[in-house]
Amino acid sequence: MSEAPPSFDGLSCPVPVTTGPTVQLAHGGGGRMSKALVDRIFLPAFRNAALAALHDGAVLPAPSGRLAFTTDSYVVRPIFFPGGDIGSLAVHGTVNDLAMCGARPLALSVGLILEEGFPLADLERVIGSMRDAAARVGVSIVTGDTKVVDRGKGDGIYVNTSGIGVVPDGVDIAPTRVRAGDRILLSGSIALHGIAILSVREGLAFTTTIESDSAALCELVAAVLAAGGAGVHVLRDPTRGGVSSATNELAEAAGVAMVLDERAIPIREEVRGACEILGLDPLYVANEGKAIAIVAPEVADAVLAAMRAHPLGREAAVVGEVTAGPAGRVTMRSRVGGSRIVDMMSGEQLPRIC
Amino acid sequence: MSEAPPSFDGLSCPVPVTTGPTVQLAHGGGGRMSKALVDRIFLPAFRNAALAALHDGAVLPAPSGRLAFTTDSYVVRPIFFPGGDIGSLAVHGTVNDLAMCGARPLALSVGLILEEGFPLADLERVIGSMRDAAARVGVSIVTGDTKVVDRGKGDGIYVNTSGIGVVPDGVDIAPTRVRAGDRILLSGSIALHGIAILSVREGLAFTTTIESDSAALCELVAAVLAAGGAGVHVLRDPTRGGVSSATNELAEAAGVAMVLDERAIPIREEVRGACEILGLDPLYVANEGKAIAIVAPEVADAVLAAMRAHPLGREAAVVGEVTAGPAGRVTMRSRVGGSRIVDMMSGEQLPRIC
Repeated sequence: MSEAPPSFDGLSCPVPVTTGPTVQLAHGGGGRMSKALVDRIFLPAFRNAALAALHDGAVLPAPSGRLAFTTDSYVVRPIFFPGGDIGSLAVHGTVNDLAMCGARPLALSVGLILEEGFPLADLERVIGSMRDAAARVGVSIVTGDTKVVDRGKGDGIYVNTSGIGVVPDGVDIAPTRVRAGDRILLSGSIALHGIAILSVREGLAFTTTIESDSAALCELVAAVLAAGGAGVHVLRDPTRGGVSSATNELAEAAGVAMVLDERAIPIREEVRGACEILGLDPLYVANEGKAIAIVAPEVADAVLAAMRAHPLGREAAVVGEVTAGPAGRVTMRSRVGGSRIVDMMSGEQLPRIC
Repeated sequence: MSEAPPSFDGLSCPVPVTTGPTVQLAHGGGGRMSKALVDRIFLPAFRNAALAALHDGAVLPAPSGRLAFTTDSYVVRPIFFPGGDIGSLAVHGTVNDLAMCGARPLALSVGLILEEGFPLADLERVIGSMRDAAARVGVSIVTGDTKVVDRGKGDGIYVNTSGIGVVPDGVDIAPTRVRAGDRILLSGSIALHGIAILSVREGLAFTTTIESDSAALCELVAAVLAAGGAGVHVLRDPTRGGVSSATNELAEAAGVAMVLDERAIPIREEVRGACEILGLDPLYVANEGKAIAIVAPEVADAVLAAMRAHPLGREAAVVGEVTAGPAGRVTMRSRVGGSRIVDMMSGEQLPRIC
């Protein structure tokens, strides 16, 4: 295999990789065209020893610590959006799920479901974006799989990223460690990802382009753990379903109640305006680069300072407190002083947001 | 959550899980209906401590050894077929990829992409099949994710299974260990999976129903490794692209040639007949419960005996030999004494076979 950049023009290509610029069923057939796709797009992008072994799986050195293991499929539309695309989102999202376990990411897998006719140029762009996102985080994509479905049975590209990570000794992140009196910290302003996607989809033009907050949170989480130690009880990224669903799930799993302070929740003016126009409650809108940390009160200041010292946590705030009960109840103290129950989202607010 | 079997009739259901018997977009929205799907279908099926933590990922004890990591997406049609379904196939396939690394499976993840309108009864059947397949292997499904795409943007259900496994010390399975003189063993008769799928799809009726060979090979591989030790150089399951693609990939990765003996390759009469009717070369047809083992000549008899002693390896045979070169070339000594080159499949013979 040449070290040159992948080429699909058919001229510099010694084997019949493709008869056109789009994905064909044979790219998923396990034969020569599948191999060409791997050799020309995936291997050059994700270059590492485990992947280059081209075995059915990757073999990695023995890790020193507990393992975290997570999976996510990405079906977002459009696949390219302000602030990211389905590729970087898939890397960030899975890295973040590992980070929320307190884990340092070790390796990622990529499973693609491509629709016949998907442009190879778009595939290369998505794979390049995955490569760049993984390189920024310092994690390797070590194994992968591609399937192709017939036209009309998919939607261009779906991406599954699974990830394994190592949880350092002494780190114990679990809802069961949450106690009444714990502080609820949020690493930055909410609803950016959902509004960015919806703006593009609906063709809305705001004065400022609202960009997705899609980002890898592993460094921020490392700083939080360094500052808060065993006082960091649980971490969660409020993705689908937003802050409301994330806090509800945590309150239920921990058997506690939570009180959020509406004035303290960071939200940008343009996002608030967009939510009003679209009739959305920002508390239910997806984030892809934010973390909720629930920490013991004595470490709250230190964790907040650590968040704010990180580029992805400049707008971090203490947004609420854990109370004894009733178990699973999340309430919000509103700007005007009242109090309302924050429920889990019950229907589908924004389909295919991630 | 009650211990009763999952119910979707809406009567025994305290939250509005669903307004009908099919998947809805809100089942993928991250809110109450997503949670209901998890609580009522996935948790009861895959019951284990790591999954029950309901965190963004699973945390597992530190393993003792190198890790194997693999991913596969399954898009097979039809989803239910003689000898299995997309659920058991997804568990077997990923367990087998781990086994081909010489690894003992440790944990699986499941990522589902459901199409709006997919019957919940079919989802329960697939999940039940995954549960049963995982239980037979003794592996846990520890983390999962569900996305729902709009009607016409999927095909009922796509399943990604990723897996991690532990490679015991002393096991070193890699194409680079293959040497001229090594024997090529095949664990049983070929082309069953592909022909089983195609028979259903094409509505063909043969005297005997041809069933898929979909099965987990980890026990068989453990027996092979116990019998052959360091003499087991490489393992591969000849899935998409069949024995021809698997041997071609291995010959290329190892920089050796291979000679296969057509008379030695096990194939059932009804499969040979079906291949003739369908115009398919069985060497290119997918298997889902067969392993190729390339072993040092001095352990070939012991490995063959170990395979034959296992229920999944009764028809095992030595089917060929590794020669020095030319690198990447696979040839076949035919029944009538001639010799032909066995190439990788270049197009798509059977789309959506797995």
